[in-house]
Amino acid sequence: MNEHVLTRMQELRDLAGIIGLASWDQETYLPKKADPARAAQLATLQGLYHERLVDPRLAEWLDAAKETTDDQRAMVRVLRRERERAVKVPGRLVKAIAEAQSLALAAWRQARAEKNYPAFQPHVETLVTLRREQADAWGHDGERYDALLEVYEPGMKTARLLPVLTRLKDTLVPIVTKLDAVPKPKSIFAGKTFDVDAQWRFTMQLLPAMGFDLDAGRQDKSVHPFTSNTHLTDVRLTTRLSPELPFSALFGTLHEGGHGLYEQGFLPEHGRTTLSQAPSMGLHESQSRLWENLVGRSRSFWVHWLPKFQQHFPTQLAGVSLDAMLHEMNRVERTFIRVEADEVTYNLHIVLRTELELELLRGTLSTKDLSEAWNAKTKALLGLDVPSSDLGVLQDIHWSYGEFGYFPTYALGNLYAASLWKALRRANPGVDAELEKGNSAPILQWLRTNVHQHGYRHDAETIVTRATGTGLTDVDFVENLKAKYGALYGVSL
Amino acid sequence: MNEHVLTRMQELRDLAGIIGLASWDQETYLPKKADPARAAQLATLQGLYHERLVDPRLAEWLDAAKETTDDQRAMVRVLRRERERAVKVPGRLVKAIAEAQSLALAAWRQARAEKNYPAFQPHVETLVTLRREQADAWGHDGERYDALLEVYEPGMKTARLLPVLTRLKDTLVPIVTKLDAVPKPKSIFAGKTFDVDAQWRFTMQLLPAMGFDLDAGRQDKSVHPFTSNTHLTDVRLTTRLSPELPFSALFGTLHEGGHGLYEQGFLPEHGRTTLSQAPSMGLHESQSRLWENLVGRSRSFWVHWLPKFQQHFPTQLAGVSLDAMLHEMNRVERTFIRVEADEVTYNLHIVLRTELELELLRGTLSTKDLSEAWNAKTKALLGLDVPSSDLGVLQDIHWSYGEFGYFPTYALGNLYAASLWKALRRANPGVDAELEKGNSAPILQWLRTNVHQHGYRHDAETIVTRATGTGLTDVDFVENLKAKYGALYGVSL
Repeated sequence: MNEHVLTRMQELRDLAGIIGLASWDQETYLPKKADPARAAQLATLQGLYHERLVDPRLAEWLDAAKETTDDQRAMVRVLRRERERAVKVPGRLVKAIAEAQSLALAAWRQARAEKNYPAFQPHVETLVTLRREQADAWGHDGERYDALLEVYEPGMKTARLLPVLTRLKDTLVPIVTKLDAVPKPKSIFAGKTFDVDAQWRFTMQLLPAMGFDLDAGRQDKSVHPFTSNTHLTDVRLTTRLSPELPFSALFGTLHEGGHGLYEQGFLPEHGRTTLSQAPSMGLHESQSRLWENLVGRSRSFWVHWLPKFQQHFPTQLAGVSLDAMLHEMNRVERTFIRVEADEVTYNLHIVLRTELELELLRGTLSTKDLSEAWNAKTKALLGLDVPSSDLGVLQDIHWSYGEFGYFPTYALGNLYAASLWKALRRANPGVDAELEKGNSAPILQWLRTNVHQHGYRHDAETIVTRATGTGLTDVDFVENLKAKYGALYGVSL
Repeated sequence: MNEHVLTRMQELRDLAGIIGLASWDQETYLPKKADPARAAQLATLQGLYHERLVDPRLAEWLDAAKETTDDQRAMVRVLRRERERAVKVPGRLVKAIAEAQSLALAAWRQARAEKNYPAFQPHVETLVTLRREQADAWGHDGERYDALLEVYEPGMKTARLLPVLTRLKDTLVPIVTKLDAVPKPKSIFAGKTFDVDAQWRFTMQLLPAMGFDLDAGRQDKSVHPFTSNTHLTDVRLTTRLSPELPFSALFGTLHEGGHGLYEQGFLPEHGRTTLSQAPSMGLHESQSRLWENLVGRSRSFWVHWLPKFQQHFPTQLAGVSLDAMLHEMNRVERTFIRVEADEVTYNLHIVLRTELELELLRGTLSTKDLSEAWNAKTKALLGLDVPSSDLGVLQDIHWSYGEFGYFPTYALGNLYAASLWKALRRANPGVDAELEKGNSAPILQWLRTNVHQHGYRHDAETIVTRATGTGLTDVDFVENLKAKYGALYGVSL
């Protein structure tokens, strides 16, 4: 491959890694007063990254790239795609979006505190306008939302996504209604507190047991859990410790651990190239959801881990049965807040947002009517009356960045996870027996082979199709839900 | 000031800050397997820094800078100086030095383990040759060592430094002989261990008491203590915890805390400019030495802190008197290893190295004879026979980086510290009484006004001269030593 291309690619990947490090540090160890300085440093790094990416010489070098292997062709394709998208957006628009984001973020925080959507509305309006302009700059076939989806889920199209989400919605709504009617046991945690140091120690036992390599990554604490990547040998995740909610750290670690295993599973020889990254946020999320929900909320997993969890909290968990734990962690409930939603209702929150975003981008919904539209959909999908906009349209941070097209990747993660899980179990019929013994190695092994090692060789759906035999589908997800919750709640779904 | 100059200056300072962060992280939290990736990332950042610095457009912008204030003139002067020195060194030489350093470092580690100087000698030879070439590229008036001193101590010349060090040596040798003859009390720590968590808590009490702002900085643990700077609002220091040596963490924190207070004391308006840095390593070291030795090893300081230290170690320090503590921390002893040397003998280790470096650079000493020359000087200055080169010429890491000219800054730090301390006490006669009450605020206040706030407005000796009335001198240092150790050991010095 052209030396210049390789060198520049490595430089860009190094810069991206350092941006990851500086962002991780901002959420973990940065002294309070250093926020403005760090913001300036990050802006400088991002400016340099952009400048080196749009450099006209890089276009020439890419044209002369002379790739000789499939991997080299994939590296160059990913870099060229990133560059071409970057050059299409005029600097004026980049700047306008950055400024609008910064204003919108401050306005959103205040509006949410005051439960006042109208104060936020002009900012959404501006961001929708700018994103429409950006979508036009990137180019599309008449569906602007496609150009935005491409940011988070390269290759995905509205025409492919929407029918799947619509069918999923139509299946989920009656399931939720059925499960809602079943009486639930009282929470086994109510009124108890759980020592945060013991919680931490338990999560630090879970991580290596999952296969996370603590010599090539670490866990720290932060307000909002996340996974950050500086290099495949330096994968950092965080968890949140709450004395009243022991599941917060536990499932936080399983979720971020799933992301982390993915990042550690890229091939070493792809280390400083464009291939050592996931092809989409949806596929990344499939890994976290698989470990959090399909492994972490399963009976087999807790056969092994419940006694260990009880050792950490002998008083609080004395006499707690496996069934009680499974009910506790798989409680289905209609709630207002997406991030607190369970496995069954979660995707309805996503469908709601995706449908609204699509209408905003198509221009069939005005930002002035957004809050009412939100509330109407909440009623239709979840049967809930939104009492105030902090529990409604103002709950998520995404739109204050103008991140339209991000939400569907959460649903894609759930759907991909279910399909991968089904294929994995077909290939390894003994997975449950191994999980009961505390052995999740066969799971990691299958994911390494079928997903992780490919990095960005192919787009997400291609990787899923090769691994499962089918591409994006809601069938496996729904099948799994029906089986699991039907059994748990003793109802036919 | 020219917008381009300001923008580029801020960008360079941001990059320098991020290099500081990535280096700090390397010594504190980096996962084991990520060392090669971090080395590559740092090389990329340093390469970008260099490229942006030597950019020919920056020279044009600097020529059109139109500074309107003294501070702006100083900013531009510092940036221009850095740029001019960078462009004078051909890329070929920069690369050759980097390669030689990398080989020498590995060879030094092995040679030291094997106590085998001849195995390291060819590497010193190469590095001396390359540094002579680099000195010629930078330019000098016949004394190559001047060009290297300029890296660490801008403005300092061999002709100014050497007579001071020589007189210091001639004064110190007989003082050490006298103190060596006095019988010393047995160590009060021998055979005891000190809980490292309690040590940590004690250092975390010391830091804010010194005036270190933990909202604009932090302390962590590392194998070798150091202070790193990302911005004046983000100053990070480390300490080392050893169960057998409680002074390691204690004086480590006082030392690094002194560095840290300096970095936190730059003016906020100098934040992303070339002025928010010390003008020299010697002046930086004066701040650490002042807090470590002149404050931290003084009777007044321990009047307040001994009871608190005893609270942390009630068993180990039961009945320990103030006198016993002061003897313990001010033990004068002839030893082989510089980093373990006391306040009195320390500078002799520096004189030894400076004289050898000078001869190497002048060509009057061959690297083949370096180990014998080292041993001869150790005998002459410290009266010791070096038994093996790991206790002699191979003990320090500096020469494996070809860092000739660095060592004298440690002595400059000691001398500047003593002169500043004298001026500070002249201006604040109540300093001791305040220290006895645990109040070091007048010390910090004076240093802020006379040293810290100036940043890089002037060179080090100018700042010292304005603060003390005299420039570089050994007089204040010797006067302080004679008074302190004469009283402590009951001898006339």
